[in-house]
Amino acid sequence: MSDQTQETSGATRLERLHAVLDKGTLNQAGRMLNALHPGEIAHLLESLPLAQREIVWGLVNEENGGEVLMLVADEVRSDLISKMETSQLLAASEGLDTDDLADLVQELPDTITREILDSLDHQHRDRLEAILSYPEDTAGGLMNPDTITVRPEVTLDVVMRYLRHLKDKIPPQTDILMVVNRDGKYLGVLPLTVLVTHAPDDTVAEVMSLDARAMPADWEARKVANRFEQHDLVSAPVIDEEGRLIGRITIDDVVDVIREEGEHQFMGQAGLSEDEDMFAPVLVSARRRALWLGINLITALLASWVIGLFEATIEKIVALAVLMPIVASMGGIAGSQTLTLTIRGIALGQLSGKNTRWLVLKELAVGTLNGLIWAAVVAVIAGFWFNDVNLGLLIATAMIINLVLAALTGTLLPMTLDKVGIDPALAGSVLLTTVTDIVGFFAFLGLATLFLL
Amino acid sequence: MSDQTQETSGATRLERLHAVLDKGTLNQAGRMLNALHPGEIAHLLESLPLAQREIVWGLVNEENGGEVLMLVADEVRSDLISKMETSQLLAASEGLDTDDLADLVQELPDTITREILDSLDHQHRDRLEAILSYPEDTAGGLMNPDTITVRPEVTLDVVMRYLRHLKDKIPPQTDILMVVNRDGKYLGVLPLTVLVTHAPDDTVAEVMSLDARAMPADWEARKVANRFEQHDLVSAPVIDEEGRLIGRITIDDVVDVIREEGEHQFMGQAGLSEDEDMFAPVLVSARRRALWLGINLITALLASWVIGLFEATIEKIVALAVLMPIVASMGGIAGSQTLTLTIRGIALGQLSGKNTRWLVLKELAVGTLNGLIWAAVVAVIAGFWFNDVNLGLLIATAMIINLVLAALTGTLLPMTLDKVGIDPALAGSVLLTTVTDIVGFFAFLGLATLFLL
Repeated sequence: MSDQTQETSGATRLERLHAVLDKGTLNQAGRMLNALHPGEIAHLLESLPLAQREIVWGLVNEENGGEVLMLVADEVRSDLISKMETSQLLAASEGLDTDDLADLVQELPDTITREILDSLDHQHRDRLEAILSYPEDTAGGLMNPDTITVRPEVTLDVVMRYLRHLKDKIPPQTDILMVVNRDGKYLGVLPLTVLVTHAPDDTVAEVMSLDARAMPADWEARKVANRFEQHDLVSAPVIDEEGRLIGRITIDDVVDVIREEGEHQFMGQAGLSEDEDMFAPVLVSARRRALWLGINLITALLASWVIGLFEATIEKIVALAVLMPIVASMGGIAGSQTLTLTIRGIALGQLSGKNTRWLVLKELAVGTLNGLIWAAVVAVIAGFWFNDVNLGLLIATAMIINLVLAALTGTLLPMTLDKVGIDPALAGSVLLTTVTDIVGFFAFLGLATLFLL
Repeated sequence: MSDQTQETSGATRLERLHAVLDKGTLNQAGRMLNALHPGEIAHLLESLPLAQREIVWGLVNEENGGEVLMLVADEVRSDLISKMETSQLLAASEGLDTDDLADLVQELPDTITREILDSLDHQHRDRLEAILSYPEDTAGGLMNPDTITVRPEVTLDVVMRYLRHLKDKIPPQTDILMVVNRDGKYLGVLPLTVLVTHAPDDTVAEVMSLDARAMPADWEARKVANRFEQHDLVSAPVIDEEGRLIGRITIDDVVDVIREEGEHQFMGQAGLSEDEDMFAPVLVSARRRALWLGINLITALLASWVIGLFEATIEKIVALAVLMPIVASMGGIAGSQTLTLTIRGIALGQLSGKNTRWLVLKELAVGTLNGLIWAAVVAVIAGFWFNDVNLGLLIATAMIINLVLAALTGTLLPMTLDKVGIDPALAGSVLLTTVTDIVGFFAFLGLATLFLL
């Protein structure tokens, strides 16, 4: 089996490249590097510490440069761009798909953008400007204007001849041709599988599919992704307000949206951006994370302030200081479970006015039930530990209060944040633990002050 | 613009369905429901509380049933299956793709599986058993054996006639035909775009693409997904150890893998499964989450035990009880940032022996830097609050210790867990906070005992 068809060689080639890089024979490394798929080069660059990354990037040839640049994570891209000369950027921008070019242009300084725009022909520039007019996270921003369109009245034979004429200019991931009328209005699609399985003298109108509904350009990226997933699409037409075809979205861009959404939820909980570069310089990383630590310090100080209110109580019963983190921590855990479920429900579009009330009631029930169970366990442990039944009853009561409030906060907080336009994946967890810490300490120490002193 | 081509009507149709469901005219609701795409029906079912879900599921006709069943989340599927009769399950299994059928069969009781296997023809059964022999999360488990294969020596004209003969039997998301030799060995692919743009008398061998390397059946799903992303694939061939073509993987299944991986990371941190059904019965949800709360209770008790060691110290200086949550909390936050980055790096395959050391050193530097900065801030606040310079110096020292250890734990812990086969996305955060809580309390209270008493 040759090197080209045997898959396992992929990893080996990368490893060999690593070995060559270590030995420092750059010419050889350059040849091996540029034999990789641009996606693999991008992945390699993301996996390299800064110094090595710069060397390897210098070895990528101009032909691959633009595409690799579009495939690396946002932050890595900014880093690479910041070190490139204008002429290199111009070279990299050549041969990019219009949608990729639109993404690139948005990150370049204005002077270079102007140069790139000037270097394009009229038609190309119009297309680029059409994409740039839509926000990046909408169907319009995701689309590529390079579509193949056919008229309904022509025969499949004519379509085939047209495709033969286009040949290598057929864009990648073309599984459907778009059917439009004389005014450019979108009518339906002609899948390639239909084209190749029907008689050459059939007309497009006779065999085209009307099921593939076009997406309006102002659709949110998330909605586009859900539609692709629910309908198993490979590509989809995008229309403007008048129903005119203005481009198409392909599954590779949708996969990026889905991947980024997942990473955004996961990394947002730790106050990180999904674009975070693992190998960013220490100072850059430290500064970025310092902000999140600062925000959390404020919430920690708030919790300390609550504890401080009860200094006199703690002085008399030190056991309270020993036990109080349990109440806060259990509330935080229970709340973050509810929060996580709710955030995912919002992201998947599964939460609407209809079922919100149901969910809140359910989470309240779950919180109460688990509150009762674990409160009992903790009560027994605390009671025996400090040989004090009242202390056990007290911590149990505080825990139930905190778990019920955690359930309420875990559902209502993200929904409210989403409604007022704040990203719950980013702000949710810090606000939630602020609530569970404060309620936990206040309930426990407050009850102790009332009943134990 | 008709209802079929205008996209915005999608939401409206769902809303109208909701309205009809509320009014209780079931016949009408059933008609509207079955006019939706199976993916949309699945989404609707996932968004409905249990009682309503059962009613709506009863309205889905047999034709759609199987496909809808495969598209809902795992937990929703188990729920629906548990309420179905054998005859309904048999009906639902008809018309499913072989890969979907394989997934379904694994969730059914043995007796029903046997009935389904018996109902299949010989060829179909062999294919199903081939898939079932591979673990679900490998290329073999993801693949569908229904591929269209062609021989290298035939002409494109013959291929076209073959496709016309297959017509509606061409599987969805067919962008490439597989080229195999007489023995079934995989040779390369013939993209449909190449087929339609080349002369009918060219042979397959002349125009086929050798770039599309086949994936071995034992590849991990995650590796398959990374390959699809890096190469922008729509479908890919799967081969056995002898290089024989045994099936193909399509992008829709890969999108599921990517979506699930993202959800797994996000939800795993709260001890939830990515299959968690938002509308599961209260008792089911409560039981499942209770386990996670129990695990966390143990870590909270450990932390309390550490505090308990210093009861005598706290009795003398109550300010320690007020300030100690700050040290633990800041360590937890800093550590979870590092942990999150590392878990993502592992998932994306960006961490190898080569750059691990680099990452650990970098995170140590970031941790130290942020430790110094925030320690200084906290020292000033604590010093003024309790009018005690020594207390300020003490909390600063404890915080630096905890943030440095948090950085070490945040990098080394997930890598170690991954190496010994424990999922860091699930176990990482609870273990990390155990470390940061214990180290935080121990460092702060221990130093106080040594220097302030």
